[in-house]
Amino acid sequence: MKLAKLGHVALVTPDLETSVGFFKDVIGLQEMERAGDSVYLRAWGDTEHHSLVLTAGSDSTVDHVAWRTEAPEDVAGYARQLEAAGTAVTWVEGGSEAGQGDAIRFRLPSGQAFELYYEMDKTPSPPGMGSRLKNQMGKSYGAGIAPRRIDHLNINVANPPEIHAFLAEQLGFKMRELLRVEGGFVPAGWMAVTALAHDIAVMHDPEGRPDRFHHVAYYCDNWHDVLRGAEVVRESGLPIDVGPGKHGGTQGFFLYVKDPGSGHRVEVFSGGYLVFDPDHEPYEWTEEELADLIIWYGPQLPETFLTETTGPGPVPALGGSA
Amino acid sequence: MKLAKLGHVALVTPDLETSVGFFKDVIGLQEMERAGDSVYLRAWGDTEHHSLVLTAGSDSTVDHVAWRTEAPEDVAGYARQLEAAGTAVTWVEGGSEAGQGDAIRFRLPSGQAFELYYEMDKTPSPPGMGSRLKNQMGKSYGAGIAPRRIDHLNINVANPPEIHAFLAEQLGFKMRELLRVEGGFVPAGWMAVTALAHDIAVMHDPEGRPDRFHHVAYYCDNWHDVLRGAEVVRESGLPIDVGPGKHGGTQGFFLYVKDPGSGHRVEVFSGGYLVFDPDHEPYEWTEEELADLIIWYGPQLPETFLTETTGPGPVPALGGSA
Amino acid sequence: MKLAKLGHVALVTPDLETSVGFFKDVIGLQEMERAGDSVYLRAWGDTEHHSLVLTAGSDSTVDHVAWRTEAPEDVAGYARQLEAAGTAVTWVEGGSEAGQGDAIRFRLPSGQAFELYYEMDKTPSPPGMGSRLKNQMGKSYGAGIAPRRIDHLNINVANPPEIHAFLAEQLGFKMRELLRVEGGFVPAGWMAVTALAHDIAVMHDPEGRPDRFHHVAYYCDNWHDVLRGAEVVRESGLPIDVGPGKHGGTQGFFLYVKDPGSGHRVEVFSGGYLVFDPDHEPYEWTEEELADLIIWYGPQLPETFLTETTGPGPVPALGGSA
Amino acid sequence: MKLAKLGHVALVTPDLETSVGFFKDVIGLQEMERAGDSVYLRAWGDTEHHSLVLTAGSDSTVDHVAWRTEAPEDVAGYARQLEAAGTAVTWVEGGSEAGQGDAIRFRLPSGQAFELYYEMDKTPSPPGMGSRLKNQMGKSYGAGIAPRRIDHLNINVANPPEIHAFLAEQLGFKMRELLRVEGGFVPAGWMAVTALAHDIAVMHDPEGRPDRFHHVAYYCDNWHDVLRGAEVVRESGLPIDVGPGKHGGTQGFFLYVKDPGSGHRVEVFSGGYLVFDPDHEPYEWTEEELADLIIWYGPQLPETFLTETTGPGPVPALGGSA
Repeated sequence: MKLAKLGHVALVTPDLETSVGFFKDVIGLQEMERAGDSVYLRAWGDTEHHSLVLTAGSDSTVDHVAWRTEAPEDVAGYARQLEAAGTAVTWVEGGSEAGQGDAIRFRLPSGQAFELYYEMDKTPSPPGMGSRLKNQMGKSYGAGIAPRRIDHLNINVANPPEIHAFLAEQLGFKMRELLRVEGGFVPAGWMAVTALAHDIAVMHDPEGRPDRFHHVAYYCDNWHDVLRGAEVVRESGLPIDVGPGKHGGTQGFFLYVKDPGSGHRVEVFSGGYLVFDPDHEPYEWTEEELADLIIWYGPQLPETFLTETTGPGPVPALGGSA
Repeated sequence: MKLAKLGHVALVTPDLETSVGFFKDVIGLQEMERAGDSVYLRAWGDTEHHSLVLTAGSDSTVDHVAWRTEAPEDVAGYARQLEAAGTAVTWVEGGSEAGQGDAIRFRLPSGQAFELYYEMDKTPSPPGMGSRLKNQMGKSYGAGIAPRRIDHLNINVANPPEIHAFLAEQLGFKMRELLRVEGGFVPAGWMAVTALAHDIAVMHDPEGRPDRFHHVAYYCDNWHDVLRGAEVVRESGLPIDVGPGKHGGTQGFFLYVKDPGSGHRVEVFSGGYLVFDPDHEPYEWTEEELADLIIWYGPQLPETFLTETTGPGPVPALGGSA
Repeated sequence: MKLAKLGHVALVTPDLETSVGFFKDVIGLQEMERAGDSVYLRAWGDTEHHSLVLTAGSDSTVDHVAWRTEAPEDVAGYARQLEAAGTAVTWVEGGSEAGQGDAIRFRLPSGQAFELYYEMDKTPSPPGMGSRLKNQMGKSYGAGIAPRRIDHLNINVANPPEIHAFLAEQLGFKMRELLRVEGGFVPAGWMAVTALAHDIAVMHDPEGRPDRFHHVAYYCDNWHDVLRGAEVVRESGLPIDVGPGKHGGTQGFFLYVKDPGSGHRVEVFSGGYLVFDPDHEPYEWTEEELADLIIWYGPQLPETFLTETTGPGPVPALGGSA
Repeated sequence: MKLAKLGHVALVTPDLETSVGFFKDVIGLQEMERAGDSVYLRAWGDTEHHSLVLTAGSDSTVDHVAWRTEAPEDVAGYARQLEAAGTAVTWVEGGSEAGQGDAIRFRLPSGQAFELYYEMDKTPSPPGMGSRLKNQMGKSYGAGIAPRRIDHLNINVANPPEIHAFLAEQLGFKMRELLRVEGGFVPAGWMAVTALAHDIAVMHDPEGRPDRFHHVAYYCDNWHDVLRGAEVVRESGLPIDVGPGKHGGTQGFFLYVKDPGSGHRVEVFSGGYLVFDPDHEPYEWTEEELADLIIWYGPQLPETFLTETTGPGPVPALGGSA
């Protein structure tokens, strides 16, 4: 059993139309379908029906984070394994999410809902939005920043090592980079099931909350696309959350901006490295190396970068640094 | 059993010092070690002791193409499997190639020598050439074009479908894209064992020769790095072979240039896509779509692009289009 | 008396709406005003009411090419000087072109109509299209390729040296680069009144026609914007005329595409150099150096590059190389 | 009489060899000549013998800032005009600076020494460093960041309006952008004699010192070159002073780094706009708009950005923000 990739992130937003407008006009995703209270979107290089779901709701929460399995039978296999390990699993019937087959859901020990699925429609682009390249779903560079594909997500939890262990043992994630502070505690780890530098980062919530969403990230082909993205954000009238700049850890050239409809943070980035070595040893950063881990060059992260997250509870204020 | 990645390409050159100078000063690889008649080099993002070997010899041939296995025991496992299938296998003792453990070698039905290994030193960079980033081996952007890492290679053979089948059945390569012409013949296929768009392309040699080397490709982080590479090549006084331009197939933004010491062709490129879907269906291009497959934009490939290859026999003339 | 800059190019098109759509959606200009049969557009960094006029007409011709004078009184001053030298001058009353004050028109000896003006409205952008930067007229990167500003134009004539001399003597243009062939004839010259590498190029028409329009060029801030422009053109379904590539002469990183409504050729480019030295000596290229002058890297120009021009007579076919 | 361009900046450094190494290996200038205690350098697109002079001395001061005149006779013309206006002028004999003819020197009311010259050798590049492009002096992208050409400088003074007026009245500079604070005081102005967004910026020294040097700026062709420059600086082991980021004022995409030999600040940047309109009205920024003026996106300027300058007095500490 193996997870194949991050499939999609399903976000709840108190202001659906503002959120949809942001993801379409500023981020540059393509609207694929509306069904019920949900809008399904994807980037031009995403291969499945959607990589983002926006659903109207009262809070700015994450409905679920979905991972595709390597084989159809892995969905049930993971269900059995998780239940055997004491994790409650529920089934999501095929079709209850647009384009998707039977899936399972469960919660991390920290509370975030994960979904595992295999079957998903590889839906062609809506009329006028398809690419003339036969190995590409959507027309690139149509609107907004226009990243290529979904890449990874970051969550904040109260006890990162517990979640790192859960992801490794239950789901096969491998540690790629980590921060180890004095006393040996690991407040941050970057983990992957694919060749990407990371598919998920799990970090310590400064306020000790267990179930926080930090950001979802979309990948751009070039650093320049991220700079152009900064122009797009500034001209949209929205504040830039942080960036553009380059993290030392995982080497992403980043730009963070928050959805004005929900406060969910989105990263568009380029660069990073791929890992093909089966014996990759996690890069361990120390507190002395923390500055380079966080920022290789570009703006420093504001104090609020780790505390301003979304999740159960009050909708965050939507301000940001310019 | 599984192959983890393309490890290195070992080229023979009639003019070792010219070739070393080209790969260091123009391509921008780092010299790691000299041993006997061989010079070992790698790019700043390569993780192992070397990704390129240059060995003095009378012809412009390929000594071998090396693939790392996913597990140590896979080397012997593949040896057994290949021999069982009728392919002769020889062992290469650890240390006979700098930095490398025990390995096996065998020939494709078309003649190209492949090597499988697992153990390889992850040698730090020579003094003054290491990166200050702890997740990166070498100092980036030190000299020449300075690509990040080795990516793939292309070979020409007399009967591509035979080699596609061998790679799929014996070594687990999956087809990513292919060209199918009238009558159903497949003269070109792009195959991968990793998430890359391709690790190897196998194409039909227009003159029906079985054992030809077309190029080895190094990956750059940005399209812009490739354009800057074109400046580097032009100012070096060498002709550009082809490019810069973008292939439709596999979407690489490319620049080809030939090593003046050997005539071996090198590609530096950026872009392309990653494949994480386990049920990826190969993109099939038809003859009608051939123009887009070959060139999405940029210079057309010259007639000689497929015929000017290296391999057993006379050293090629080293001219090129500007 | 001095010319300050190239102001705008006024093109006639047999298919106004197709042309307007092309310049807005593909090139990415902003529509400023419609008046009568004319549509006025500009790029986001242009400072005046318009830099391009599209007017419905039966042929694909150039109505006029307009240059701003350094001082208000220069318009009349040039009128007197031109008439004294035997060139017929007509006055264009203020307001007959949207946003523009009194102007003069005259024809080059080769037939192309030039206009000189000083007064032009610096009109704010239409609602929703203005930049949040106070030193920039329009919102950048809104649609299509989105170049910053108009830059230069190229014309073909029967006798280039005659026109080079007229531009130098009557209008103060300085020669920046030229091609001199055997016997001393100069079939191509790049000339400027500003610090740009050139404001106009005047080349020999291979068929000896005197009054041909080759292209108008818009400037992008980065080479990357031109590459992205190639994606925009390909996804639009239009053929690329030539490029992307880099000219040695004037060092522009170029992409040419033809307006499908008229066949007029448009260049978007980046790079080039500025000239601040008052004693700049023209760079003289010889026939032996012709290849580098034309293409430093990238696709070779097709045979038709110099012959497919617009002007009086039949509307050109609108095909192109991919 | 008219100034044609910024010619060169002559810096004094307490550690000549460290400074030369920095400007060659990190910034990527080419060493043209050593004479006495001075080293002359230029960028690959600079047209004259040098654009930077480094001279050994006890302090980190600016020996002079040199401007080329539009005509040979302007040097004496400016001498007469300046003396008539009460400014002391001294002559610098041809040859006392390498490559340069007779020149004059005088001090701004704030103390900075300016030099005006017309004659300067257009020296070919040293062997192996020339470009194969005939319209370009040096081989591009040879080492370090490798900007194209000198662009502008910034100085700090006690009373900016006095210097703005001197530059306008005595030397013909035009105001391009300015900051006007409550009460009407103008603490910062960007002025030009060329089409560049600015050739010099004159700002208020927070400590009221009259004669401070803030930075000299070199221009890169692409934003990406500046990002690559950030990698070069980080890998060199030097701290980045500020950046990369984009100023709203004059729109430069910047990276600041200090010469470790002297503490002089250097900017490499790309972008910006050109001004061709003779009636350009200065863009006036208010205090409310200050944030966008300073940073359109990227890192905020540290408090020390305006106070850490060079000039008469103690050599500055050479630390910096990473």
